[in-house]
Amino acid sequence: MRTAPVDFSNLCLHTMTTKPWSLTEAIEGYREAGIPAVTVWRQHIEPFGPKKAGTLLRESGLKVVSFCRGGFFPAVTERERSKAVDDNRRAIDEVAEIGAPLLVLVCGAVPGQPLEESRKQVADGIAAILPRAESAGVRLSIEPLHPMYADSRSAVNTLKQANDVVETLGGAGLGVTVDVYHVWWDPDLEREIRRAGANGWLASFHISDWRTPTRDLLNDRALMGEGCIPIRRIRDWVRAAGFTGHDEVELFSDECWSGDQTKVLERIKRAYATCLAE
Amino acid sequence: MRTAPVDFSNLCLHTMTTKPWSLTEAIEGYREAGIPAVTVWRQHIEPFGPKKAGTLLRESGLKVVSFCRGGFFPAVTERERSKAVDDNRRAIDEVAEIGAPLLVLVCGAVPGQPLEESRKQVADGIAAILPRAESAGVRLSIEPLHPMYADSRSAVNTLKQANDVVETLGGAGLGVTVDVYHVWWDPDLEREIRRAGANGWLASFHISDWRTPTRDLLNDRALMGEGCIPIRRIRDWVRAAGFTGHDEVELFSDECWSGDQTKVLERIKRAYATCLAE
Repeated sequence: MRTAPVDFSNLCLHTMTTKPWSLTEAIEGYREAGIPAVTVWRQHIEPFGPKKAGTLLRESGLKVVSFCRGGFFPAVTERERSKAVDDNRRAIDEVAEIGAPLLVLVCGAVPGQPLEESRKQVADGIAAILPRAESAGVRLSIEPLHPMYADSRSAVNTLKQANDVVETLGGAGLGVTVDVYHVWWDPDLEREIRRAGANGWLASFHISDWRTPTRDLLNDRALMGEGCIPIRRIRDWVRAAGFTGHDEVELFSDECWSGDQTKVLERIKRAYATCLAE
Repeated sequence: MRTAPVDFSNLCLHTMTTKPWSLTEAIEGYREAGIPAVTVWRQHIEPFGPKKAGTLLRESGLKVVSFCRGGFFPAVTERERSKAVDDNRRAIDEVAEIGAPLLVLVCGAVPGQPLEESRKQVADGIAAILPRAESAGVRLSIEPLHPMYADSRSAVNTLKQANDVVETLGGAGLGVTVDVYHVWWDPDLEREIRRAGANGWLASFHISDWRTPTRDLLNDRALMGEGCIPIRRIRDWVRAAGFTGHDEVELFSDECWSGDQTKVLERIKRAYATCLAE
């Protein structure tokens, strides 16, 4: 039995983890649960607008770790790609307004378009929004997605690819997000975490677990410890590589979303205490 | 409109593609559809036994391309790993008896066991069965599986990893299987196909397609042309690398399995004619 008090000071929740909650409910719920930090999803600020959301977040005392998500740059037509760039510029303005230092990018992909072409469009899109991000003081972080999302969500599927994009674009103002759910299987993961760390690119760290069997490609992530991902080991790698940021719980789970969110928070805290707390 | 006759001489079907059919029904159905070759799954020979199945296959005139599947070497205990090796040796005997030149290996994984450990157990398992395979005249082929199966089906998730195992074990009597469904997303695919080809390791080639959205992790593969995989391009790569074997349709699909299998064969032939036939 653990008797020492658990340190939750490094714990952060994504508002998508408690998707049914509005931003105000999430703020209230996290504060009551003693969760000190939040990553805000765009859909949760929409009902309030970024200005009001920013006020609510500042007043809450919660630390705002990042904003999810920008990206989805690839498209078949120049016009659609240009629209995506515009939308990302608006997202950067929103990030600045809510006071988040980081915009996480899910890069995008177009089913049937060659992945190399989508990757090129991703790099072009990031290059196009980088000046706005820099002038707004917002860092952009590329999150590689699991290869099972290569069809329609991201042509960037390994940390190596994300690092390569950051390197190609010169690194300044950019970073990578390590989400254990997406990258745990990768034999090059430890090496690429070291590479990202050595270059100062480790921008954020997301946790959840891989359920066996997984019943849905999108919304069946497990609580930490209820799956097969060596989460603590991967966190050891990111910390050894110099990362000092939060452990962000990003849990897409129909099961969790269908229950009482206050109870879900308690389950998350217990899972975190068992798997990751010092 | 295509008017020239379609060449199906390179087409091969996995008996799992027509899973509801018994071996005799599959043989009959493929022959009537003019499909010249078959890859036999172990469960389809079980009701007959390998001796009788071998006789049926030889009498059918169908070319037997390979046998699926061996593997699943990793296990927590030495005793279980030893059982897996014994079972693979029995599989090799069955492959020889039905007259197939190739046993395809799905390597296996144990949820929660470090992937490096599973990979080591995979290499040990293959090394243990290799002498029996060589004396039986059966080649062993390592099929990397999509990373979404890294939890419980295979710790070998890229063609590079499969090539590495073959290289480590000396190459003789071994090969790799390129299944477009598992490897299409991989940025190193073309390079690793060239590497496998240059070493004479390209043993077999499986086709199907990736549906968007995919509704099930296991049994929602699409017919060629109904998904986003650049199948012809990947086949160009394996052919350019020296592969001269069959195009094997391996379609795990609840949708196809629930319909009239004779009609499914016609759909497969049309899809093949459109996507891949010369």
